[in-house]
Amino acid sequence: MKFATIGVDVGGTNIKLGLVHPQGKVIARTSVATQSFTSHKTKLIAALAREIGAMMAANGLNRNNVGGVGIGLPGLIDYAQGMVGFLPNIPGWRNVPLAALLRQKLRLPVFIDNDVKLIALAEWKFGAGKKTSDLICLTLGTGVGSALILNNRLYRGPGNSAGELGHVPLNEQGPACNCGGFGCLETYIGNRRLVARANTMMGRKNMTLEAMHALAAAGNGKALAFWKETGEHLGNALVAVVNLLNPQKIIIGGGVSNNYKFIFKTVRDVLDRRAMSTPAGMVKIVRASLGDDAGILGAHVMVHNAHES
Amino acid sequence: MKFATIGVDVGGTNIKLGLVHPQGKVIARTSVATQSFTSHKTKLIAALAREIGAMMAANGLNRNNVGGVGIGLPGLIDYAQGMVGFLPNIPGWRNVPLAALLRQKLRLPVFIDNDVKLIALAEWKFGAGKKTSDLICLTLGTGVGSALILNNRLYRGPGNSAGELGHVPLNEQGPACNCGGFGCLETYIGNRRLVARANTMMGRKNMTLEAMHALAAAGNGKALAFWKETGEHLGNALVAVVNLLNPQKIIIGGGVSNNYKFIFKTVRDVLDRRAMSTPAGMVKIVRASLGDDAGILGAHVMVHNAHES
Repeated sequence: MKFATIGVDVGGTNIKLGLVHPQGKVIARTSVATQSFTSHKTKLIAALAREIGAMMAANGLNRNNVGGVGIGLPGLIDYAQGMVGFLPNIPGWRNVPLAALLRQKLRLPVFIDNDVKLIALAEWKFGAGKKTSDLICLTLGTGVGSALILNNRLYRGPGNSAGELGHVPLNEQGPACNCGGFGCLETYIGNRRLVARANTMMGRKNMTLEAMHALAAAGNGKALAFWKETGEHLGNALVAVVNLLNPQKIIIGGGVSNNYKFIFKTVRDVLDRRAMSTPAGMVKIVRASLGDDAGILGAHVMVHNAHES
Repeated sequence: MKFATIGVDVGGTNIKLGLVHPQGKVIARTSVATQSFTSHKTKLIAALAREIGAMMAANGLNRNNVGGVGIGLPGLIDYAQGMVGFLPNIPGWRNVPLAALLRQKLRLPVFIDNDVKLIALAEWKFGAGKKTSDLICLTLGTGVGSALILNNRLYRGPGNSAGELGHVPLNEQGPACNCGGFGCLETYIGNRRLVARANTMMGRKNMTLEAMHALAAAGNGKALAFWKETGEHLGNALVAVVNLLNPQKIIIGGGVSNNYKFIFKTVRDVLDRRAMSTPAGMVKIVRASLGDDAGILGAHVMVHNAHES
């Protein structure tokens, strides 16, 4: 059975809400600044309940014609328990039974999961990963997020922490990473590191990735070299994924993925050159296709999957 | 329904056959040298049919009281199609429909898969991975084999090539590997490389891994350093697996896994130090428990799974 849902995407900057049509189109949207509610977790929970209720009211909906609420959050989430383990960028959230708390307030089914996992679910169901049983979906940004669909299912891992491509080590003697590890992919291609590297390569202090993209598009040799180097690091990490998991697709997205168009060819070259021929020969590298709606749509897919299982 | 099966483990040296009791015990064994039959693929196929028939006859069994035949082979196998893609160490095998050919000869259900995948299946069902939904099973030897159980299922990958931990790169500028890649784990801890390294470290020309094990057991500092270095390389590759897949167990086996007892502590230390805390905190490192029977028992599990699905 198909039904409308409310999908919520809690980001560090904004909380985005969408009313999703049974067929998977976002038919209404609202957004509030996250910062206003981060002083205490009860504030954020109350804001979520209020905004969800307001969206339903504004669209003439009640509990009888909404199938459920799905929420993506940036952190370690236990989907099965509806529990927020922790949110690295929003203090005070540790082992909070968010799904149960909201279920009580809204008297609707509520499901929660990690935001990148929901993006992968959305791309698999509606986007660049349609009809693909096995894929990895990346979001490139400040961090390098990723999630896995294996055998047509979101692969969460027994502790819900699976999919951390950003923390696959590229070198045994690599730079220290925030995660405690060394040489993680994120220490090479996380946004802050890329901006610092861009400044060094260009001999400037104010480079942005948008500017590096524009310079590369105009044929600037240093900017092209910058993106080639970035693509090589990403490709090298993906060699591990391709040899280990043999996925059919690598989906590359994230808020700034347009800036990354110069890395696609390099990533392809690295896989062809360095990964094993069977899995390298079958993996496709594609851009994410759902843009900013992916988190909301993934929340919708999660609610439907939960009803079906 | 439970039934007896014939499990066959085709190795580079020997073909081992076992009659497996419905409950998963090997109750009769035979073995023939692989080399006698490698001149042409029809010879090997005929030998397999003959040996399987002989084992049934010797144990007073016929087609009515054997549920099927399972065969593990060292190479790329398409389980669903019953097809041998290729066997790197036995020439002349490329796209051979082995299951169908043997089914015709034996008039019994025949299933085939990669040998390391069957070892993982056996350890998961009967051995060190019992009651574990998500694990990686390694076989350390000339090559570094591995296979994945994810969500209580053998994860083969869409092209049947999943699980190649041996070809996870440890360093971007690493040594060239036989697979065409660079810096693969196998180039650091494959047996040939380990023996060469042992000779260098000991200033000798005839070291064996057994000798390095004995020296380490006797407290030899160089031998202990050798195993520590080996464990660090393996641990660093496993950081990628732990962060990417969040498995509950890492099972380490292989014909010579006894020699590796000195690496277990180092692997643990590396994961605790370098992997993310959530997945590192829950993963157990254990030794494989089924020894030489693992391949035959895994073939038995495969036949049962095929009947149940």
